[in-house]
Amino acid sequence: MELKPSPFAPTDYPALDAIGGFRLGVAATGVKYKGRNDLLIVEMAEGTSVAGVYTKSKCPSAPVDWCKAHLGGGSARALVVNASNANAFTGSAGEKTVSAVAAAAAEACGGKASEIFMASTGVIGEPLDPAPITSLFGTLFDPEKADASFMDAARAIMTTDTFVKVATASVDIDGTTVAIHGIAKGSGMIAPDMATMLGFVFTDAPIASEALQGLLSKHVDTSFNAITVDSDTSTSDTLMVFASGAAKGRGCPEIEVADDPRLEAFSDALSALLQDLAKMVVRDGEGASKFLEITISGAEDNAAAKRVALAVANSPLVKTAAAGEDANWGRVVAAVGKAGEMADRDKLAIWFGPYRLAVDGMRDAEYSEELASDYMKNGEIEIRADLGVGEGTATVWTCDLTHGYITINGDYRS
Amino acid sequence: MELKPSPFAPTDYPALDAIGGFRLGVAATGVKYKGRNDLLIVEMAEGTSVAGVYTKSKCPSAPVDWCKAHLGGGSARALVVNASNANAFTGSAGEKTVSAVAAAAAEACGGKASEIFMASTGVIGEPLDPAPITSLFGTLFDPEKADASFMDAARAIMTTDTFVKVATASVDIDGTTVAIHGIAKGSGMIAPDMATMLGFVFTDAPIASEALQGLLSKHVDTSFNAITVDSDTSTSDTLMVFASGAAKGRGCPEIEVADDPRLEAFSDALSALLQDLAKMVVRDGEGASKFLEITISGAEDNAAAKRVALAVANSPLVKTAAAGEDANWGRVVAAVGKAGEMADRDKLAIWFGPYRLAVDGMRDAEYSEELASDYMKNGEIEIRADLGVGEGTATVWTCDLTHGYITINGDYRS
Repeated sequence: MELKPSPFAPTDYPALDAIGGFRLGVAATGVKYKGRNDLLIVEMAEGTSVAGVYTKSKCPSAPVDWCKAHLGGGSARALVVNASNANAFTGSAGEKTVSAVAAAAAEACGGKASEIFMASTGVIGEPLDPAPITSLFGTLFDPEKADASFMDAARAIMTTDTFVKVATASVDIDGTTVAIHGIAKGSGMIAPDMATMLGFVFTDAPIASEALQGLLSKHVDTSFNAITVDSDTSTSDTLMVFASGAAKGRGCPEIEVADDPRLEAFSDALSALLQDLAKMVVRDGEGASKFLEITISGAEDNAAAKRVALAVANSPLVKTAAAGEDANWGRVVAAVGKAGEMADRDKLAIWFGPYRLAVDGMRDAEYSEELASDYMKNGEIEIRADLGVGEGTATVWTCDLTHGYITINGDYRS
Repeated sequence: MELKPSPFAPTDYPALDAIGGFRLGVAATGVKYKGRNDLLIVEMAEGTSVAGVYTKSKCPSAPVDWCKAHLGGGSARALVVNASNANAFTGSAGEKTVSAVAAAAAEACGGKASEIFMASTGVIGEPLDPAPITSLFGTLFDPEKADASFMDAARAIMTTDTFVKVATASVDIDGTTVAIHGIAKGSGMIAPDMATMLGFVFTDAPIASEALQGLLSKHVDTSFNAITVDSDTSTSDTLMVFASGAAKGRGCPEIEVADDPRLEAFSDALSALLQDLAKMVVRDGEGASKFLEITISGAEDNAAAKRVALAVANSPLVKTAAAGEDANWGRVVAAVGKAGEMADRDKLAIWFGPYRLAVDGMRDAEYSEELASDYMKNGEIEIRADLGVGEGTATVWTCDLTHGYITINGDYRS
């Protein structure tokens, strides 16, 4: 099926130069796709530190299990990503494949198997043969032959994405400029054309794995864990950060803890970069015609605000209203109500963009259906609700629910 | 918007004779609909006992608040239902309307205001004037003039329903036959064309309110609380049972407690009737082309099984796969995984109808895509998953997610 490009596809991309300590290779396994690369390897300098967060699914894929088991080691020598078969729900055969890929990659780069990290995306429940992957390692780990760019890498991990997702920043750590590059692929659809959410960030900053994990765990809550396309969690969602430390050669100090004040600019830049990538995933949500920012304020605490925000963002009625450009604040009331968090109905207020539609538990006397309906014609829509019970706030991002989503996910397989 | 009738609309209806102790009246308020009745009153004999369960929404409608406040009194003299305006998110004006309607109905039937129960369905956030309702009470409470049938009643409370929902049973209590009639209206859509779920059951059995509440609270879990159309909870969902006690005149003993063994047949019949009505609501779900029964077994306990079953039933990916007649068990794996309940991935098994697609955490070796795909062409589809960790089971019902749902809820307002 040929997918129509998202209306939110970027018109230009930032330059993504090579970063010290990382060498990239892409190739075509031919497992599923014809005529495109679907395998990425990133070889990393010795001493590269690693941090990761993974799907909370109780039925995770074999690569997710592998990564979780080895994250504690704190060091990485290679990342292997294939976009054809998720190696999920494949039982002991899946574990064997992961071990075989790790062993082959470790041998090729001279590291340990426990320093090889993996992610797979694609069909669920089909056995994944390691051979089409490992047979390419001779070339991919050969510095003479493999020299892919970050754009190539971002393209190789795509499945149903309609545009390439990359982001970059450069930032100062105690007088040395370091680079941060991120690539991601989008979400929305599980087997047979699985579109797990994957994100990988690379930096030459010398940051210890504990510090890196601290930053990632903090910022994931306001980025990849603050987006939803259809509320369906994949078995394979993976977000990892790798820090090669190559900037040490330019005098950058080694950073051991996440709250080191010298990391402040880096932390802010990482947070913004993760949020950029996460928003790209939503903008490329299946069938998306509107990008929605949902902000909840006045909740009991931030966690409660986020639960309410996600209830609104996941409401099919709110999402179809956005698709229909209908300023239907009654559906927001219903979604707030069903979230189960404390709310004072008689203090609830709702805004669509600059327009307050409801206040004190009633329709706003100043409410203009015409202005609100005009506002809904925008491609990017802000919905805000104040619950009137506390100081908690949260923002999440989602897209609308359209005929395009049904067509992509529900129409007969050809 | 003219709605296409559900493919699951019944071809014939049971006869619903009058039941002692209840007198019904229907009328047209003209508030929203033209040329149809949208107001139902049921006048009840003195001493009628009452039980109810209501939406768990934190932003309930004014009538829900009223009913909850007065349910403890245990006796009812009238039910008033309007299907035009939900009187939800209407602030203190909404409370005033409810009080005015209750006072007028109490005066008309000679009861107390606290014995008047109400439900409203329709647009959210629009003030509801009591006058178009109360001005009809003179006629509706006049035994000479108002003599509607239960079919008339079921028709008067419809909003976006495409077929009338009634069910009936007659059952023996200690040698006396009593009648149970139920009416319901469907769900799926909130304001401006709200389609809250409402259900009302009437019996002439002399059952005390505590016993009635015990039965209702027990059976709602396997009926109205075991269905989902789009996971959106309305501000107004209401399910009530009224027992007039008229069968006392035919020698039926008064029953005081829910576990009285003489109530066994009644309890079973009530359970089946509530389940029938609930399934009708799903079969009339907006845009439904498939009726799905989701059964989870092998869970830690029944509550865990139900949470997993609802996660599967609410998964847009499972629902669109059903719409596309795609035997996509990978999406069931993903939905089970995201539910957050204990599951043993390597013992998980999945059936679509009689066909086991996955076992021991892998695709079943005997799996036939052809047979499974053929099965998906049925209008009613059973999906079963065994989690492999315990004895808990649960069954829930839902419908598929189709272009029809998007059209009804998302297309531009005309």
